[in-house]
Amino acid sequence: MHTIARYRYDMQRSRVYLDSGGSAPLSGRVADALRAGFAEGWADPARLSAESRRARALVDGSREAIADVLGARPELLHFTTSPHDAFARCIAGIHAARRGRHRIVVSAIERDALANAAAFTAPHSVDTVAVDTAGHVSIEGLAAALQSDEVALAAVQHANQELGTVQRLEDVARATQAADVPLLVDATSSIGHIDPPAYWDALVAHPADWGGPAGIGVLALEPHTRWLQAWPDGDDWAPGGISVPLALASAVALQEREEARREQNDRLAALVYRIRATAAQVPGVDVLGDPHERLPHVVTFSCLYVDGEVLLGELDRRGFAVGSGSACVSGTLEPSRVLAAVGALTHGNVRVALHPGVSEDDIERFLTELPDALDVVRKRIGAPHIAS
Amino acid sequence: MHTIARYRYDMQRSRVYLDSGGSAPLSGRVADALRAGFAEGWADPARLSAESRRARALVDGSREAIADVLGARPELLHFTTSPHDAFARCIAGIHAARRGRHRIVVSAIERDALANAAAFTAPHSVDTVAVDTAGHVSIEGLAAALQSDEVALAAVQHANQELGTVQRLEDVARATQAADVPLLVDATSSIGHIDPPAYWDALVAHPADWGGPAGIGVLALEPHTRWLQAWPDGDDWAPGGISVPLALASAVALQEREEARREQNDRLAALVYRIRATAAQVPGVDVLGDPHERLPHVVTFSCLYVDGEVLLGELDRRGFAVGSGSACVSGTLEPSRVLAAVGALTHGNVRVALHPGVSEDDIERFLTELPDALDVVRKRIGAPHIAS
Repeated sequence: MHTIARYRYDMQRSRVYLDSGGSAPLSGRVADALRAGFAEGWADPARLSAESRRARALVDGSREAIADVLGARPELLHFTTSPHDAFARCIAGIHAARRGRHRIVVSAIERDALANAAAFTAPHSVDTVAVDTAGHVSIEGLAAALQSDEVALAAVQHANQELGTVQRLEDVARATQAADVPLLVDATSSIGHIDPPAYWDALVAHPADWGGPAGIGVLALEPHTRWLQAWPDGDDWAPGGISVPLALASAVALQEREEARREQNDRLAALVYRIRATAAQVPGVDVLGDPHERLPHVVTFSCLYVDGEVLLGELDRRGFAVGSGSACVSGTLEPSRVLAAVGALTHGNVRVALHPGVSEDDIERFLTELPDALDVVRKRIGAPHIAS
Repeated sequence: MHTIARYRYDMQRSRVYLDSGGSAPLSGRVADALRAGFAEGWADPARLSAESRRARALVDGSREAIADVLGARPELLHFTTSPHDAFARCIAGIHAARRGRHRIVVSAIERDALANAAAFTAPHSVDTVAVDTAGHVSIEGLAAALQSDEVALAAVQHANQELGTVQRLEDVARATQAADVPLLVDATSSIGHIDPPAYWDALVAHPADWGGPAGIGVLALEPHTRWLQAWPDGDDWAPGGISVPLALASAVALQEREEARREQNDRLAALVYRIRATAAQVPGVDVLGDPHERLPHVVTFSCLYVDGEVLLGELDRRGFAVGSGSACVSGTLEPSRVLAAVGALTHGNVRVALHPGVSEDDIERFLTELPDALDVVRKRIGAPHIAS
């Protein structure tokens, strides 16, 4: 029989993980929750036995704990199999309930998963609202797009996963409320990092981004938000149910983050400030996003004459894992829509997302290596010298 | 802050879990795999860092191990977020690739998730093929339905999760091949219990049914099976990716099952035979499904004058968790389509699904309690006496 490849986790002592947007090592408390969840919540919560009731109680408790943080109603907070699926169902479901209105309004820097779901639900009927160079959605542009009486819903993110920029949702919501259009807020990059948004009719969140496990999503609805089932199976939001242990660990991770958030954020924001200030000094590097209205733990900069993937590889060899808008295995190497929307260089970008375990020393070493890594990569392609 | 409800798992010493179709306690080896998976596979496998490569290697190894058991090509074996989602995407994807052909042929005893996905993809264009009283699909009926040149695909399960009946897939495949129609085989109740099916163009499997964790599905395709993307997101089969630890644990669970399967099955089949023989002696009880061509671990019987949920509750109080076609929390109490299709009583049915940890003593105690539990429930509703 074939044996599954086993990889010994020889964590390099010096290895620094700076790519925690959407995934990070699990804390001991979250790992404990997973262990408890698999031991106590293995039964199907949709059945009737004592074992199933126990599993259901774990899901309900997890739902309540997360709803409490989000300011949502527990009975209107749903686990989904992924944020992608939450976007797809939420957009299709609300769209279906708004009979006669078929257009969808989205900002230019929404996630691909959301933009794709909108285009799938409303082919050739998605209106995109521009953002300024810091990544703030144009409120005038939004209001103009909402003037049509054919708009089924609008989607504006809470914070951008690349730029770090936090939207002014009070202004956004004023515009959608004036037009009587439901507002979907993508909070997949903000929950657990800043205060939850106060304005939304539907909200999607991503446990893996706040220190929980991957493989589960969260969708919250306001009581007035109407939707119709627009998918095959009868289970409202999660086809075939979700993993109970993942739900439990998601709730525990959020509680852990919230308890330490303000204290941790001061430290992380100082590190991000240090990265922004230092990177801005490197020749040919542009630091992106709003300098003040931003996530405390994310920073992205663009590097002239550099391919993002190559720079990531060079930094990876030096022991630093960072992200990039255009860098993924299945990546088509299309330029980042987000960076294009704010008028930045769309290649050669590096995203640093700090998790609470990152130290000052880690960042100092990163900032020491960065200019040299950039030099090496630029020399390899024969890029012209850039004056400081 | 709200605290998550904690349930101490005071497993009654006498508690017997006989509802393991689709969920069961995890073995020590599977729990170890989960622990290793969360420790080593927390990174997003779609990114480029060393951490992501490690996660990707775990997914690839898991894929290869499962493909090896299924006789599938590893590169055409995909993890999905659930079997529901595998059905929905596979049916929509194959249907979209068969331009001009819009009908879908399914057996009368397919799972709701599959039947719903077919009806969603091809509204008012699903043809249902009858089964005989043992649950075998009519090959003549299938061939007749396939005579239309408008058929996009056909779906026939490998084994039925309620009846236990195993289909004669060689005959089924001969009919679909003659009509040049792709065959989707639902193997969500059979993999890990009997030899994998030898005839399919697409196959769906469910790790939680073979002792793996819930929250993940498996889809395998043959190289000649064509499909088109019929969903919003670009990720081929799993929107936003799957949980790496769940994939790893699924593969380990399947290996563990396969290693011990033949030996365990002899023992489980003897227990099922004992249940079938004993239950058939109880007045007003009908034992269902093919007595020979069947899953070794599943048995369902119908009880006259009894509500399935009430009987489940009575057995649950006595320490036995069993299943029922119509019994679930969200259940609409609609009669089981499967039981109706074989002409059985559609209420008052009990499904017993044995996991390898069940002992002879457990079953003897269950068979001792069953007639008394039935009596209690029948007396409560004033059912007439049934002559032996």
